[in-house]
Amino acid sequence: PLGLLLVGFYQVESGNVLVIPGEFSHWHNMRVIVEELVERNHSVTVLVSTASNTVKYAKEEGFKFQFFSVSREEHEFSAMWDEMTDIWVQFKNSTILHTVSRVIDLMKNVSAFEICEAMIKNETVMGTLRQSKFDVVLYDPFTPCGDLLADMLNVPLIVVMKMFFGYALERICGQMPSTPSYTPTHPVRFSDRMNFPERVQNFLQHVMLTTIFYTLTHVQLNPLYKPITFCDSIGKAEIWLMRSYWNWDYPRPFPPNFVFIGGYHCKPPKPLPKDMEDFVQSSGDDGIVIFSLGSIYKNQNLEMSNKFASALGKIPQKVLWALRGEKPETLAPNTRIYDWIPQKDLLGHPKTKAFISHGGSNGIFEAIYHGVPLVGIPLFVDQFENILFMKNKGAAVMLDFFKMEVEDLVEALDTVINNPSYKKNMMRISELHHDQPTKPLDRALFWIEFVMRNKGAKHLRVQAHNLTWYQYYCLDVAVFLLAVVGLFVFLMVKTCCFCIRMCCWRTRRKNKTE
Amino acid sequence: PLGLLLVGFYQVESGNVLVIPGEFSHWHNMRVIVEELVERNHSVTVLVSTASNTVKYAKEEGFKFQFFSVSREEHEFSAMWDEMTDIWVQFKNSTILHTVSRVIDLMKNVSAFEICEAMIKNETVMGTLRQSKFDVVLYDPFTPCGDLLADMLNVPLIVVMKMFFGYALERICGQMPSTPSYTPTHPVRFSDRMNFPERVQNFLQHVMLTTIFYTLTHVQLNPLYKPITFCDSIGKAEIWLMRSYWNWDYPRPFPPNFVFIGGYHCKPPKPLPKDMEDFVQSSGDDGIVIFSLGSIYKNQNLEMSNKFASALGKIPQKVLWALRGEKPETLAPNTRIYDWIPQKDLLGHPKTKAFISHGGSNGIFEAIYHGVPLVGIPLFVDQFENILFMKNKGAAVMLDFFKMEVEDLVEALDTVINNPSYKKNMMRISELHHDQPTKPLDRALFWIEFVMRNKGAKHLRVQAHNLTWYQYYCLDVAVFLLAVVGLFVFLMVKTCCFCIRMCCWRTRRKNKTE
Repeated sequence: PLGLLLVGFYQVESGNVLVIPGEFSHWHNMRVIVEELVERNHSVTVLVSTASNTVKYAKEEGFKFQFFSVSREEHEFSAMWDEMTDIWVQFKNSTILHTVSRVIDLMKNVSAFEICEAMIKNETVMGTLRQSKFDVVLYDPFTPCGDLLADMLNVPLIVVMKMFFGYALERICGQMPSTPSYTPTHPVRFSDRMNFPERVQNFLQHVMLTTIFYTLTHVQLNPLYKPITFCDSIGKAEIWLMRSYWNWDYPRPFPPNFVFIGGYHCKPPKPLPKDMEDFVQSSGDDGIVIFSLGSIYKNQNLEMSNKFASALGKIPQKVLWALRGEKPETLAPNTRIYDWIPQKDLLGHPKTKAFISHGGSNGIFEAIYHGVPLVGIPLFVDQFENILFMKNKGAAVMLDFFKMEVEDLVEALDTVINNPSYKKNMMRISELHHDQPTKPLDRALFWIEFVMRNKGAKHLRVQAHNLTWYQYYCLDVAVFLLAVVGLFVFLMVKTCCFCIRMCCWRTRRKNKTE
Repeated sequence: PLGLLLVGFYQVESGNVLVIPGEFSHWHNMRVIVEELVERNHSVTVLVSTASNTVKYAKEEGFKFQFFSVSREEHEFSAMWDEMTDIWVQFKNSTILHTVSRVIDLMKNVSAFEICEAMIKNETVMGTLRQSKFDVVLYDPFTPCGDLLADMLNVPLIVVMKMFFGYALERICGQMPSTPSYTPTHPVRFSDRMNFPERVQNFLQHVMLTTIFYTLTHVQLNPLYKPITFCDSIGKAEIWLMRSYWNWDYPRPFPPNFVFIGGYHCKPPKPLPKDMEDFVQSSGDDGIVIFSLGSIYKNQNLEMSNKFASALGKIPQKVLWALRGEKPETLAPNTRIYDWIPQKDLLGHPKTKAFISHGGSNGIFEAIYHGVPLVGIPLFVDQFENILFMKNKGAAVMLDFFKMEVEDLVEALDTVINNPSYKKNMMRISELHHDQPTKPLDRALFWIEFVMRNKGAKHLRVQAHNLTWYQYYCLDVAVFLLAVVGLFVFLMVKTCCFCIRMCCWRTRRKNKTE
């Protein structure tokens, strides 16, 4: 199905791509790659569950869906995500024990095992996929088992992800070296310059995450992957497209098959809808503030929403707030609430002064792309470290969702808007984003097409993948060398003893004879 | 002196570059970067010693030289290189003790210290360089102390190199992780797939090279660098431009400021001089063979040269042989000897069937660029591993300079020319070279201009540079944690003992009372 693709002296024809995306923001950015693949004349099939929350609602423009049935309904998954958000945003009003038991219930309720089996044990779907003879599988590990599917179809695999479990996946299965002495691990509370107590804590977190990762994969995934393991399978990935870049991540070494494409989804802004543009223009010289806590947050905490609304009423800027659910009572006239906002285009608007964000990576990269300083109110997972990085670089003020008072938000907005250092620092990060040898999206597409052209990228794959952990750390070699040295010392000592005994014996005999 | 350079929304103006090149092949490839810098309107100054063997003979086209005097004459250095070549190519006829003593004499005779002092303690030269206000220093570590000079001038440093001392420099000073379990070290006799005995040997070589590297830099260089060390100084490099790429190197992880530009000096072929083209065309369908043992080899071993000539007389191809010095007596009519050949253009000629090479990296990359299979006759240093890699990939036959007989060369040429697998494998490596997201030379220039634009590339620099070795390996953390655990166990035991004693005492007292 694959002809040749144009690069240098190669000719163009279309390849055949299977995409296994994640949901929510994961789909929003995978979608950008899908669109670009379609644009470049490739045939794209998106594999999606019948209970999908976001992916299946996309218009099939230039690509097609392949559905697989799961025994659950969409609303059950939807309820699961809501429940997860609830657990986090109501964390403060709950005891730790209660929170932990809710998380465990949630995990019991929907296991990776179940989705996985629904996908790979569906003979009809697998038959159709086999017949399609794909050239490459693009896979976001948000959805389990895509790597196993690629392996079963015998198609080269490309992983698309940002970070998984404090780099545990990339480190353990992808052979990315990650040394806890200078690579802050999840949950990150430090930068890459750590003092001694911080390094102790980071080291312990590193050990803990590694243990949890091994336990979870061993219990949840490995039984499905028999006779190999999850790590063996995903470790076969030809290329790791990482949604990260060094203007917004701590530099660390990586194998040659890691390609950093952070911010590839960003594009120059399109014009706003007429009424929105009018509202934005009405802000005059004060400009506007954009506020969004991400697509998962649905106003689960009304008390907080009222605080936000009160604070926003006190600033001179106009505010565009993406919020689904109930309207806050304290909403001021300068603030408009929308179910959905064209966030990328708003961030690129010249009147935009600041962005209040939960710290999702898509939004942060869009703010970086357009150089808009941040007020960060992280909710969960990697959002804390996302905001922390920007705070450490002097491009964001970070607020605590649970402890935040009205005045804190007013002050934070005043700081990032009126203290020029925030804009300047954000512009510096933005310049680094735009100053790369190739554009991130072109880089992603190049390597996807490379894998299709060359049926893989084996020349970029480190041999560490074929070593056991004790071979990797040369422990077998060390034991052998110590044994050799030990044996040598033992023989030396024995020989010396023997010689001394012989001498003594002779001397005694001589003495006796005398 | 630096305006802004065009990339994306940046404007163009010219930067000011100081180049500290190496001699011989090192200069030949640095020269390509110099030419491209000139082409792009940058002002280039090449720093060179008055006793330079090759650099100072270049025509100052678009760039200028800055000389510094050394107390030696050019012929002394020239004699040193000849002596070094002699030591290697006559190695077989000499005892090991004699060889080692010759190497030690050579090292005593010309110390890095001497060249270094001549460069940085020359106040006139340093004054001129300071006034020039350079934007970047391009430095090949073949010449000592360029990094120290950049530091003294307070100008960002870019290192241009292939490999130094079995990756010891990159590993120890550049923070490139290099694990002996899958990274073959110098002198390489294996690939990156090693069995147990090979890993033992590789591990020992790794330890040995590390020790020698520390000793040599400590004795030869560190005294000059006081109060910092050589590693501190060269470790400040913003970018490491490595003359290597994964089509011709074993993949391994690297920090984000390492950029692999191997083969950047290769270009499409230019037409040959008329008489040479006539000779090439006279070969008919048999085609031609190109033969060069590099610019340092000057026919030091006449016996071998006669063997070469006899062998070349027995093949149907026409041969172009780059050889200085005495002509071999056994030269056949199909072979022409030249003082100098346009090697790049000849390798790109459609009639070229094979390349007999000593395995210098420039020549190998040219052969890769044009897809010409190799007969490798390595002489010294990295040439063995260069050829070994190509042999392992099935693109070269390797011969032993000292054990080679006439028939071996005839057979080797017959194999690489008439067994199609050699051409096919070489073409595969060649395709990987041409199938990159950007051209290697553009990549090099991008990062040089990036460093000029941004006064460095700090965002690509791993924090490992700021850690001591025991911090890097978390040894201080481990000791601390062990101490805590130890103290805890000690206190537990003591407490238990105390409790038991208390219990016993009470029981005894009770018993007594009873």
